[in-house]
Amino acid sequence: MTMVDIILKKKRGEALTDDELRFWINGVVDRSVSDYHSAALLMAICFQGLSEHETATLTEAMMRSGDVADLSDIDGFTVDKHSTGGVGDKTTLVVAPLAAACGLKVAKMSGRGLGHTGGTIDKLESIDGFQTTLSAQRFTQIVKEHGLCVIAQSGDIAPADKALYALRDVTGTVDNLSLIASSIMSKKLASGAKALVLDVKAGSGAFMKTAEDAIALAKAMVDIGTRHGREVTALITDMDRPLGFAVGNALEVREAINTLKGNGPADLTELSLSIVTAMLTMAGHGSEADCRKEAETALSSGNALKKLRAMIRAQGGDDAVIDNDDLLCPAPYSLAVTAPENGYIVKTDTEAIGRVCTLLGAGRTKKDDPIDMGAGLILHKKTGDAVCAGETLAVLYASEEHLLTVARDAFLSAVRIGVQSPSTPPIILKTVTAKDI
Amino acid sequence: MTMVDIILKKKRGEALTDDELRFWINGVVDRSVSDYHSAALLMAICFQGLSEHETATLTEAMMRSGDVADLSDIDGFTVDKHSTGGVGDKTTLVVAPLAAACGLKVAKMSGRGLGHTGGTIDKLESIDGFQTTLSAQRFTQIVKEHGLCVIAQSGDIAPADKALYALRDVTGTVDNLSLIASSIMSKKLASGAKALVLDVKAGSGAFMKTAEDAIALAKAMVDIGTRHGREVTALITDMDRPLGFAVGNALEVREAINTLKGNGPADLTELSLSIVTAMLTMAGHGSEADCRKEAETALSSGNALKKLRAMIRAQGGDDAVIDNDDLLCPAPYSLAVTAPENGYIVKTDTEAIGRVCTLLGAGRTKKDDPIDMGAGLILHKKTGDAVCAGETLAVLYASEEHLLTVARDAFLSAVRIGVQSPSTPPIILKTVTAKDI
Repeated sequence: MTMVDIILKKKRGEALTDDELRFWINGVVDRSVSDYHSAALLMAICFQGLSEHETATLTEAMMRSGDVADLSDIDGFTVDKHSTGGVGDKTTLVVAPLAAACGLKVAKMSGRGLGHTGGTIDKLESIDGFQTTLSAQRFTQIVKEHGLCVIAQSGDIAPADKALYALRDVTGTVDNLSLIASSIMSKKLASGAKALVLDVKAGSGAFMKTAEDAIALAKAMVDIGTRHGREVTALITDMDRPLGFAVGNALEVREAINTLKGNGPADLTELSLSIVTAMLTMAGHGSEADCRKEAETALSSGNALKKLRAMIRAQGGDDAVIDNDDLLCPAPYSLAVTAPENGYIVKTDTEAIGRVCTLLGAGRTKKDDPIDMGAGLILHKKTGDAVCAGETLAVLYASEEHLLTVARDAFLSAVRIGVQSPSTPPIILKTVTAKDI
Repeated sequence: MTMVDIILKKKRGEALTDDELRFWINGVVDRSVSDYHSAALLMAICFQGLSEHETATLTEAMMRSGDVADLSDIDGFTVDKHSTGGVGDKTTLVVAPLAAACGLKVAKMSGRGLGHTGGTIDKLESIDGFQTTLSAQRFTQIVKEHGLCVIAQSGDIAPADKALYALRDVTGTVDNLSLIASSIMSKKLASGAKALVLDVKAGSGAFMKTAEDAIALAKAMVDIGTRHGREVTALITDMDRPLGFAVGNALEVREAINTLKGNGPADLTELSLSIVTAMLTMAGHGSEADCRKEAETALSSGNALKKLRAMIRAQGGDDAVIDNDDLLCPAPYSLAVTAPENGYIVKTDTEAIGRVCTLLGAGRTKKDDPIDMGAGLILHKKTGDAVCAGETLAVLYASEEHLLTVARDAFLSAVRIGVQSPSTPPIILKTVTAKDI
């Protein structure tokens, strides 16, 4: 078996065998396959595609290329969630405590932010003392004791995916559905949970700009998970507007805490309850209506907030943040962006809003850039809202005053004000389960 | 300008600008472009193609990546030929003396054999003392004095093509017409001749298996040459049978000498005269009929043979080979392959015949394999000939006796005998000039 034969086969549009796909991925890991081989094959895949079976085999090979979490030691039903990334997406901070409060086990590995999207690990690190790197033993112990623990993804999870993702980025081969789906699912399968909810974002702030593309990606991922014996539900959710009002690390943690106190934005609350409802349904907690009720009760009773407090304490963080807003304070300099005219916000370039936050210091453009935890913005108006000239659209926060004016201009360019009230979609656009594929 | 943007542009099917193509090729030479970038781009080109303009620009960039021969010092009309490679193709050894005898200047760089095809340089080295590596100065001097000189291609000709060709070979991106045409033409343009005859082989012994594919390649190459101000004629020629009767280095030189003595095989004689006629026509030596007559006279007068003798002597070779057949003797062990039944040879797998010769020691499977100059075969019958059971089809020559029986079996597998006389095509299938594109 040689790489050139495998490349030629895919170039002709033929399906690769399980052995051929494994030969490739094993070679990526042990470096016997050159980057130029992988680059040519990835490009051929972009043109000829992969079948569902090939995609599942590729995913499994990448999953097995590194550590696979063993959660068998944990009593109870283990669940995981994954978001394809958006702006203001602090959902994990609400969902994990809610799910744990309902008796589910959340042993979650999360990522850091890059580009216009934030990352859960960065957000958690805005809590003083919070540890995101723990031993596997301590991780499992916290999950057993409290029902939830969120740590940073280790370098040994799906190293083949890590290598191929870096190569795809520089060879223009990122945008193939099978490659995207297998990249995400190889890491999710390695995390070992029995059930998984995928939050597939669609819109101007998401990787998938249309609901149609997001549904196709969701179906591909649900198919992979199902073929590997996992329960998977995908929610297609709106990312044509930022999620909630807060964008920026400390600001988002504060909003998540407020949501667990019952005072959160409607979209974030609804999305979090929907995700937990899907988890509970897969865990066999009854009908969808029963599960929804259970999730709502976990929120209104304050039990979910207690779970967040327990997790913060177990992971070395200062749980006073829950009672004292000032411990998650915004950066010192602020500027209110005001509406230049009367009308409605008819459109928001949400990806641009994400870049405004990076400009303010809240995000990264390169992998190892430092982050300003207090930087970011609080939206006062979102797409669909009526605005008067001079009214505050958002307040920007930064640690250096000069960043504010540049960011304001960028913010105003990202928001379009028109005369007619636009129609706005619900937060949950569609649900995809194994039955839909 | 970045490689990933260039790759994405071609992936979308857009045309690359001259600057983008030059950025790539310059980066290949100075190693600022990685092999994985080139591999991805080459694969995208295989799917999306290159326009005639892009192909011409790519060719020029590769041509300029190394040395470009300056033949301005040579008085007279400089000509060159290129064959896409076949079995038994000793045409250069006949064409160069013929053209020189007609007053044309042949400053030719040739290659070595690889796989099932032989190379002119290997053939010339079967002449005792013949030097194929000369200084540029000595090369020019011999052309000025005698009208012809044939040396091995130097390493500084089109190094970008050399690097990309090696990469195409291992990434399954060899078979794109624009890439093939630009690879050949970058080297031919660098050799500096005013006019070029392309011998594009079609059939079972050629890279292009059908006349249709060969014509498409010919048109692409003629287009490139014309865009660069060169006179180019392409002959599409039959390679469904070996050319002439001899296959193997010393055996082929002997056949070429006999052809220049007027005793050559009809197909080789006709092909050589046709190529020289095309050269003379481009050089303005009159009508096609006049040029044909001039070429025939150069052959029948013995002037062409004199030119070969002069070249061998000037390049340090022993010109006694011209008078004494025994100086180009076949390898010591021989075996006659006989027809197993009565009938006609209806089909020959010519590529397989090339591999039989490699088996006998006459060719290379890897770049630095040694060659047995005397190994090879002499065909007694070719496709279209009637044969009786027991009649000799070919005589095989090798320096080790045990090679003969294996080679005989391979030879018999390559030849199909049937009851009906097949139709056989003429050696020249078609002519392509700038008027045809």
